[in-house]
Amino acid sequence: MNKRRPRQVGNPVVAPKKGASHARDPDGTQARILAAATREFAAKGYSGARVDVICRLAKANPRMIYHYFADKDGLYIAVLERVLGELRNEELKLDIEHVPPMEGVIELFNFIHDHFGAHPELINLLSGENLLGGRFLRRSTKTPIIASPLIDLLSQLVQRGEREGVFRSGIDPLHLYVKMVALSYFHRSNAFTLSSIFRTDVRGLDWQARYREESENMLRLFLNRDRTTSRGTKKIKSLVSK
Amino acid sequence: MNKRRPRQVGNPVVAPKKGASHARDPDGTQARILAAATREFAAKGYSGARVDVICRLAKANPRMIYHYFADKDGLYIAVLERVLGELRNEELKLDIEHVPPMEGVIELFNFIHDHFGAHPELINLLSGENLLGGRFLRRSTKTPIIASPLIDLLSQLVQRGEREGVFRSGIDPLHLYVKMVALSYFHRSNAFTLSSIFRTDVRGLDWQARYREESENMLRLFLNRDRTTSRGTKKIKSLVSK
Repeated sequence: MNKRRPRQVGNPVVAPKKGASHARDPDGTQARILAAATREFAAKGYSGARVDVICRLAKANPRMIYHYFADKDGLYIAVLERVLGELRNEELKLDIEHVPPMEGVIELFNFIHDHFGAHPELINLLSGENLLGGRFLRRSTKTPIIASPLIDLLSQLVQRGEREGVFRSGIDPLHLYVKMVALSYFHRSNAFTLSSIFRTDVRGLDWQARYREESENMLRLFLNRDRTTSRGTKKIKSLVSK
Repeated sequence: MNKRRPRQVGNPVVAPKKGASHARDPDGTQARILAAATREFAAKGYSGARVDVICRLAKANPRMIYHYFADKDGLYIAVLERVLGELRNEELKLDIEHVPPMEGVIELFNFIHDHFGAHPELINLLSGENLLGGRFLRRSTKTPIIASPLIDLLSQLVQRGEREGVFRSGIDPLHLYVKMVALSYFHRSNAFTLSSIFRTDVRGLDWQARYREESENMLRLFLNRDRTTSRGTKKIKSLVSK
């Protein structure tokens, strides 16, 4: 949100020490730094997050951060890659290739829905990065964030559903995926303002459970062949305009 | 995102002047300040926005801002009230009470969809406020942000649709509204990261137009009575699990 130059990562509160205790555990140190940075960037955004706070949280010295991530920008990009990579890896682990296509799509939806529910930091990081114009994620060179394998998988499901006569034709896998995320994300990313505006706690478990159930229903009805063919849609329109 | 204390609004770049040229046009000045503040807060967020920049953009002196809005917090809250109030007022102006219920809901959806498309600043402000935990909007005492009249209107549409046998029963108007906004908002609020992750420009006009069309179709199918009754849903499930 703040467009000023990134805070300088010099002059850290925790001074670099030679032979720090974690120096012989590079993987552990890197993981600890990433976990701490994820928390700090998710809570305060890119501009508000402080490298010295991350050092303290991770019990790491700033030299390690420079060593692994070059600077604050590098660390922030690594955090984005990490949280997106986790989502992607877990999606690709789902065994949705051997179930009926409708169940495959719904299983993927429920996974996405639960993942965003369990990872509010992913929502904060994505919303924050978009407010920055997505300019850091664009610089990422890591593959884990790229969703092509997932879209391929969803594409196969959609084609199978169509072939088996279960899905209507013409469903675009990327559009479908974005809708599934929209129905998993927005009522959480905007929960605070929705709750104020509608005077209802949309973060309540009952509210969220019902919202998920209706979203699943919505997806089934959207995908289903019956009445979702173009003829079917016209039929609805003619019914409605009577 | 930045949790540090709000920047002090003192020491403005534009020094207060006695008898400034706009002093005799209080409504015009207030409107100009609000318009400039909307731009500045939408572009840089609460923390990044600067009152002296707003003064310059609005050709107003800081004394006027203190006079109308007390401080930076007051100005930011007034901006949120303004952009939400505009959405609400225009929604309530739609003549959806005298059209067939399905057309009424779809007209409302298309209005919401177009409004968010035309007002990216509303998306930025809402996303930013949620990253701040919604703590400023909670302090708002103005009624324009409250959505009860809109939910009442949607509720009447839903009931009429049900009575006329066009809608399935059990549709919750607030849940429906949140879904309509989700399908208008998320692919824009997250357009930068979606475009990076999926290597597709989701901000392209064609992409957006198709997404809207599919969302409208999805809503129609969700609302429609046929096959959306609980029996209908079971029928789909049984078809699918074969």
